[in-house]
Amino acid sequence: KENVGGTTYFYSQEDFNSHGGMVFPNFTVYPGMLPHIAHMKPKSNQPSFFMPDEMKMELLNRQSLSLLQMDAEHLPPDLPREVDDFHNLVPLEPPTMSPLQQKSSTFGYQTSAYKAISTKDGFVYCLRRIHGFRLSSTKCMALIDLWKKMQHANIVQLRQVFTTKAFNDHSMVFVYDYHPAAENVMSRHFSSNQQAHNVNGYNNPYNLDGQARPFSAGKGRGTQQGLLPESLIWAYVVQLSSALRTIHAHGLACRVIDPTKVLLTDKSRVRINCVGIFDVLSFDASQANPLAMMPHYQQEDLVSLGKTILALACNSIIGIQKEHMQTSLDVVARNYSPDLKNLLFYLLTNHSRNRSVNDIMPMIGARFYSQLDAAQLKNDVMEAELNKEVENGRLYRMMCKLGTINERPEYNLDETWSETGDRYMLKLFRDYIFHQVDDRGSPYIDMGHVTQCLNKLDAGVPEKICLMSRDEQSVILVSYAELKHCVESSFSELLQSSPASGAVSGLHPFS
Amino acid sequence: KENVGGTTYFYSQEDFNSHGGMVFPNFTVYPGMLPHIAHMKPKSNQPSFFMPDEMKMELLNRQSLSLLQMDAEHLPPDLPREVDDFHNLVPLEPPTMSPLQQKSSTFGYQTSAYKAISTKDGFVYCLRRIHGFRLSSTKCMALIDLWKKMQHANIVQLRQVFTTKAFNDHSMVFVYDYHPAAENVMSRHFSSNQQAHNVNGYNNPYNLDGQARPFSAGKGRGTQQGLLPESLIWAYVVQLSSALRTIHAHGLACRVIDPTKVLLTDKSRVRINCVGIFDVLSFDASQANPLAMMPHYQQEDLVSLGKTILALACNSIIGIQKEHMQTSLDVVARNYSPDLKNLLFYLLTNHSRNRSVNDIMPMIGARFYSQLDAAQLKNDVMEAELNKEVENGRLYRMMCKLGTINERPEYNLDETWSETGDRYMLKLFRDYIFHQVDDRGSPYIDMGHVTQCLNKLDAGVPEKICLMSRDEQSVILVSYAELKHCVESSFSELLQSSPASGAVSGLHPFS
Repeated sequence: KENVGGTTYFYSQEDFNSHGGMVFPNFTVYPGMLPHIAHMKPKSNQPSFFMPDEMKMELLNRQSLSLLQMDAEHLPPDLPREVDDFHNLVPLEPPTMSPLQQKSSTFGYQTSAYKAISTKDGFVYCLRRIHGFRLSSTKCMALIDLWKKMQHANIVQLRQVFTTKAFNDHSMVFVYDYHPAAENVMSRHFSSNQQAHNVNGYNNPYNLDGQARPFSAGKGRGTQQGLLPESLIWAYVVQLSSALRTIHAHGLACRVIDPTKVLLTDKSRVRINCVGIFDVLSFDASQANPLAMMPHYQQEDLVSLGKTILALACNSIIGIQKEHMQTSLDVVARNYSPDLKNLLFYLLTNHSRNRSVNDIMPMIGARFYSQLDAAQLKNDVMEAELNKEVENGRLYRMMCKLGTINERPEYNLDETWSETGDRYMLKLFRDYIFHQVDDRGSPYIDMGHVTQCLNKLDAGVPEKICLMSRDEQSVILVSYAELKHCVESSFSELLQSSPASGAVSGLHPFS
Repeated sequence: KENVGGTTYFYSQEDFNSHGGMVFPNFTVYPGMLPHIAHMKPKSNQPSFFMPDEMKMELLNRQSLSLLQMDAEHLPPDLPREVDDFHNLVPLEPPTMSPLQQKSSTFGYQTSAYKAISTKDGFVYCLRRIHGFRLSSTKCMALIDLWKKMQHANIVQLRQVFTTKAFNDHSMVFVYDYHPAAENVMSRHFSSNQQAHNVNGYNNPYNLDGQARPFSAGKGRGTQQGLLPESLIWAYVVQLSSALRTIHAHGLACRVIDPTKVLLTDKSRVRINCVGIFDVLSFDASQANPLAMMPHYQQEDLVSLGKTILALACNSIIGIQKEHMQTSLDVVARNYSPDLKNLLFYLLTNHSRNRSVNDIMPMIGARFYSQLDAAQLKNDVMEAELNKEVENGRLYRMMCKLGTINERPEYNLDETWSETGDRYMLKLFRDYIFHQVDDRGSPYIDMGHVTQCLNKLDAGVPEKICLMSRDEQSVILVSYAELKHCVESSFSELLQSSPASGAVSGLHPFS
């Protein structure tokens, strides 16, 4: 790369050779964190995200939820072993006890959700089952095909729809991507659990019985205690409107913007769940054009968006009831920016003219920039984490190879296989890596030494080391490059006489 | 969490207990990729980003660049060992040969850039040295303080400014965050190297000698061959305007928007480099108010932004010269959207009234959404990578512990230490992990088996396994929990008699 104006940061190997004097270490180690990560400070006007330690905990939590299984001995009698191409079903929702809860308030049918593994591709999906629904016409599948093609960061992707009798009824199953440990807005922000933690329900502007409370306290302090930070609300607004924009641009309507259908992963990432279900459930086969009603539903989407945002902004699901609406809008006007108030007025006030999701962009305005800034900073944090971890997989595989070779009791009827030739060198090298002692014979234990040895072995550097036999009678001078060759030839010897390996298990072949 | 409307995805442990039948595996394994990652498709209207394999290569490349050092035997005579609080300097730019290149065309002084390690915090920074500059007044440091507080995803952060005689002259050093493997827009898109790869320079609308070429070819195909995709140009526009907005909102001006000062990391991430230098170099101590000229410079920033975008859009640095400007704008009008043309007209055409970076938001419009969508999808990809790697570090450390214990030749004058008691069990366990054979005595090599054994060991699960002695005369039934105890007690025994370990090296203590 040419140097122009003094800011070229990019060298080819020839640059190094021609300018001389610069050396790469001939093996790889983790060079430590970069300063833009080390000194990063969270910003108050941005949606927040997990920092490294939380992030790892969250990843492990999601992994274990993905691995959840039914105890084979306590399989509920109504849970089939297989449904269409899916097996290992695990209910994602506790069974509903009261008859009132049997029917989803959104869909008017009883529904259940299961985590399940696809026999076709082995991935984990979420199955949403509509109980006792008989499909009268397959014409609606044209709409489903549109949904299946729609990929968006803020929509839980619909993959497949099928009917089944596996549950001993006529059920309709909608297959979505599975997002482990996802919560919905209702359970995170409005569940009774959540409100019980507040003091007497006074942390939100409504008492639990739905009475508006006086606002004398907290006035003038910008935001009232218990209200969500405005940056979080805008993070939701931007993501939900982004999803709506894409849906409407495809000629469809969302119809499920509702605190129970907005999934949250991470601290502020939002995804709309259950898309496409209404397009099947309320499909009117008598309509010549299946898209005829969409403009109407799209207008309803905007009202639903407004209601969801209003509920978040006054931090109460009760606040969106018609009789409380005005009070709620007052809460917003008092505690948040005029833009948020204007947005809600635009979405919730009856207009004669058609509204469009595109009209809200100017109200979001420069907040797009803070969303992007946050997303990029989060990228930087994750990249820094990956930087830390990227070496470990390689080191781990290297250790597995050594472990497989070293001290192997017998191979091809040769009891001394692991004690002779290449393997003898590797045995002494193993001692060199792990069994170092200091001057006084005490164990010298240093992860840095182990890691550096393995990195040099993996790179096969020309550096030579002294390996000493256990009886201290002989010393072998050998380079890492030779040792690497020993590992490779010994390991491939083992692999060759082990035709079943990997092929049988199908799991993680060594590389 | 309460189930409302049928979409609760979140369980507490009590939920599981009370509903029964569901079990977590009692150890952790990688559950495989989630479907939204597995099926992700790149989108043409979005800035692109590295996918997993490229990403890892790029991370390793950056790591090795971070580790670059000067060969101690070939240290250039003009390179000091220490400059202020920084050591291990490595030049980041090849030495300039021609006297013409001596002075930076941007700053009017000779400049050099070095990678260096801070003795204060140990992180790697980029030092930009202005040769032969004497600071006449420290008043400008008020501006530097403003820069130091500005954290933005698209600005290379200025950390510190100092004067030094370490280079045997009066130099001014600006300390920035270091971004390894960053390129600038000039070298990626406009370097002669780059153009030499094109066929006779005909891939951009200008010949290398600056003559406009006829546009007959490629017309009507939307974009001409060799022009950048519009999505990439908007990705730059959004990020650069985001940085400018923040800078102007702080009352400062950028003054270095220029293809040589816009750094690229990844495929489309942009950061403005060298901020704050002009505030020192051209500081006028006679002005009562150091911010007096800022409104003027801010207007210049918008013109510079326009020129940089124009150069990108006509894919030629020559195109922004005054005599080519009209041709270049025609190229844009012919090949890109009206929004891009309007943006350039707004930024480049002389206005009597003051322009503001905020005015360009409506021209960006819905493209904010595609930028955010891409950033979120990139987050998902990185998270999926982290998911794969997060276990490896733990497994690697576990292997290091086992390696340290197993086959240790002698400990506390006890030659049989590693062959008796807990250690004997661990030796047999090592055989169980690595030295499995199939029915016919052939090695059975399966990374899945190794990983699962180690995961269960790490978790100390109650599951029992049969360990067989090498002479096949005795069989021991032992649980992973007991084996875990063996590892812990044996390892801590070694650690205790190794007081120097870790403490001496300071590197990666076992955990």
